[in-house]
Amino acid sequence: MNERLAKQLAFIVEVDQLKQVERQSYLADGSRRENSGEHSWHLALMACLLAEHATEELDLGRVVQMVLIHDLVEIDAGDTYCYDQQAYLDKRIREEKAATRLFNLLPQEQARQLRALWEEFEAEITVEARFAASLDRLQPLLLNYAAGGKSWREHGIQKKQVVERAQVLQESSPVLWNWVQELLEKAVQKGFLSE
Amino acid sequence: MNERLAKQLAFIVEVDQLKQVERQSYLADGSRRENSGEHSWHLALMACLLAEHATEELDLGRVVQMVLIHDLVEIDAGDTYCYDQQAYLDKRIREEKAATRLFNLLPQEQARQLRALWEEFEAEITVEARFAASLDRLQPLLLNYAAGGKSWREHGIQKKQVVERAQVLQESSPVLWNWVQELLEKAVQKGFLSE
Repeated sequence: MNERLAKQLAFIVEVDQLKQVERQSYLADGSRRENSGEHSWHLALMACLLAEHATEELDLGRVVQMVLIHDLVEIDAGDTYCYDQQAYLDKRIREEKAATRLFNLLPQEQARQLRALWEEFEAEITVEARFAASLDRLQPLLLNYAAGGKSWREHGIQKKQVVERAQVLQESSPVLWNWVQELLEKAVQKGFLSE
Repeated sequence: MNERLAKQLAFIVEVDQLKQVERQSYLADGSRRENSGEHSWHLALMACLLAEHATEELDLGRVVQMVLIHDLVEIDAGDTYCYDQQAYLDKRIREEKAATRLFNLLPQEQARQLRALWEEFEAEITVEARFAASLDRLQPLLLNYAAGGKSWREHGIQKKQVVERAQVLQESSPVLWNWVQELLEKAVQKGFLSE
């Protein structure tokens, strides 16, 4: 039995659990909350379709791999709602512990590679990480708007909180940033989001 | 307003529906059926981790993009269970119609590009398409085995049906193919799958 392959397949079955991590966002039709597995698929597809709107030249393959793995730590650490300041206090500690356990199920050099990619995503310094983070901000806005602001209304979110959270888009893609401004303006007008 | 971007974002919201297409496979823990959105995420991650086991050199980026879009047609056409011979009779017609409607929501050249990628996946001729198809066969085996053969047992599936369906692996990755043989042998021994 190939030990390397056994580790890879065990990891693949283990991360199946990402499909059971519930996010705060609802699907576009508002019927149920989204899970982090399908969310990651959506981001990867968005990366392929929207890469042309990035300000700087980027390595699309790296962006896609980054979004595919960016939420894996939630299997142990859970999804931390982006507007929950209390939960953010120990988010980093919970997620690092999760990264150590999960990635180390893989053969050593793949574990290192995925850990590095996750750290890169978290640091939001490279062009690829900033674009990946931009998609991660944009996608819930699209769903929330489509669902009549369901999750914003549930949590009494204000426009300025969403704008602040979406800030990374301003530099990584002015085109998408402008579009977000217009969307949020309409969301306020329609009562999906408070001013 | 950027018309091109508007089309891309409308497409991105439209394909959110893939998260509501239910497959026959259960999650690894058997708690619920898998949907085609999260399934596509799982395949894309598997492509990144298992590409090294492909017989021939392949373009990983193309494999990943292929698996990200391979099931989009199910939004209109539904998931066709791979062992349902009746449903397979008009599968191609239903899916072509779906491809025409869905991909044409995108700007013309992106529509063409995605349609070509989907046709390539369906044809299973290129190295990338055969590896993508191999992952699409392997993933439900992994989940089904982990879930004690839940979906196989529900449908009274026999080992020879699974072997036939997984055939594409034999050429595209002998390592994975051998592993599948062992897994199915164990599945029969444990009563997850009938001989």
